[in-house]
Amino acid sequence: MKMAGKFISFEGPDGAGKTSVIKKISSELGDKLGDQLMVTREPGGNSISEAIRKIILNPVNTQMDVRTEALLYAAARRQHIVEQIIPALNEGKTVLCDRYVDSSIAYQGAGRQIGEKEVWQINQFAIDGLEPDLTIYLDIESAEGINRIMQHRTDEINRLDVEKLEFHQRVRQSYLRLQKNNSDRIKLIDASPALDKVVEQVRNTILQKYPNLF
Amino acid sequence: MKMAGKFISFEGPDGAGKTSVIKKISSELGDKLGDQLMVTREPGGNSISEAIRKIILNPVNTQMDVRTEALLYAAARRQHIVEQIIPALNEGKTVLCDRYVDSSIAYQGAGRQIGEKEVWQINQFAIDGLEPDLTIYLDIESAEGINRIMQHRTDEINRLDVEKLEFHQRVRQSYLRLQKNNSDRIKLIDASPALDKVVEQVRNTILQKYPNLF
Repeated sequence: MKMAGKFISFEGPDGAGKTSVIKKISSELGDKLGDQLMVTREPGGNSISEAIRKIILNPVNTQMDVRTEALLYAAARRQHIVEQIIPALNEGKTVLCDRYVDSSIAYQGAGRQIGEKEVWQINQFAIDGLEPDLTIYLDIESAEGINRIMQHRTDEINRLDVEKLEFHQRVRQSYLRLQKNNSDRIKLIDASPALDKVVEQVRNTILQKYPNLF
Repeated sequence: MKMAGKFISFEGPDGAGKTSVIKKISSELGDKLGDQLMVTREPGGNSISEAIRKIILNPVNTQMDVRTEALLYAAARRQHIVEQIIPALNEGKTVLCDRYVDSSIAYQGAGRQIGEKEVWQINQFAIDGLEPDLTIYLDIESAEGINRIMQHRTDEINRLDVEKLEFHQRVRQSYLRLQKNNSDRIKLIDASPALDKVVEQVRNTILQKYPNLF
């Protein structure tokens, strides 16, 4: 599906520094693009997606099956696409999206072990052909990512951390597979250096595709 | 997926008399089976499926995309399966379910024209192999079905009714295709005769598969 605007998604495991990178990049792009830039993330402010997220995040819903959750995420994504992303792209805007379909495949398909193919199937239905023009994948070793999140902790790794580590390793391996299989769309950036260095790499990668964007 | 219990679903276009048939059949079966019979329909009383249905039915949500709606129905179905249907089947119960996956394919895939294959894809994810052992399809001509629903009206058919008629015709044609392609599972019952006659046909059809159930 080709649209007037540019659709760039940002992906990566927890601790890759995604939020900081998007903040820097969107600030730079905003100076030039003004209201032609839209920075968004699910649920994206529409009331239907917000209501769906409330069900997912409600701590009372302990009985929620992983497949129910995956379908709800796909539903919230669909509505975010229809109400926010497609209108912005139709107006020719540049859309930066913090996580998109690859997150579901990596986190739910591989991390929660529903199956990547299965999760891709329902997301294919949700996105109905709307893939990003460019995906920035911020790659970080799982142990390093967890260390960044738990920077205040200095004690030894415990059993729960090991489970977490295995989960995060599945997520990262899935991202790496996705990148390998979609190397035209997904560009890998090493997220281990200092923030400014990573931002520079991201800026250069975006400029390779859109030479005059910054 | 083979389970201890028996899983029977009831399908049909609006006006086929499904509710009345299920009432009669479940009353007869209940006399014999007692608490080994479970009669259910989505959302089925679990709090997650109820919350999802509230979003679907909330009249404020006029912006809801048809694909969002289909994903929400699939999510509610999944949770109903996990919390109600599977536990009952595991206990060896006979489960009568008022509408199941065929309804989504006929109403959303064909009726709302999302595509039968597409809607089947997300429902395949939702049911994860749990198909009914037997599906009773109550067939009725679309015009006759609409007439039954609007029994109080005597005026001429108007433009809106024509749209409705085309919608219902798509639904029925889809049901007929499903029945043809799954004739082992889905049994067609002519729903045009009087209720007692239809119930007799349904009873005989169930007895063909489960000779000692009544």
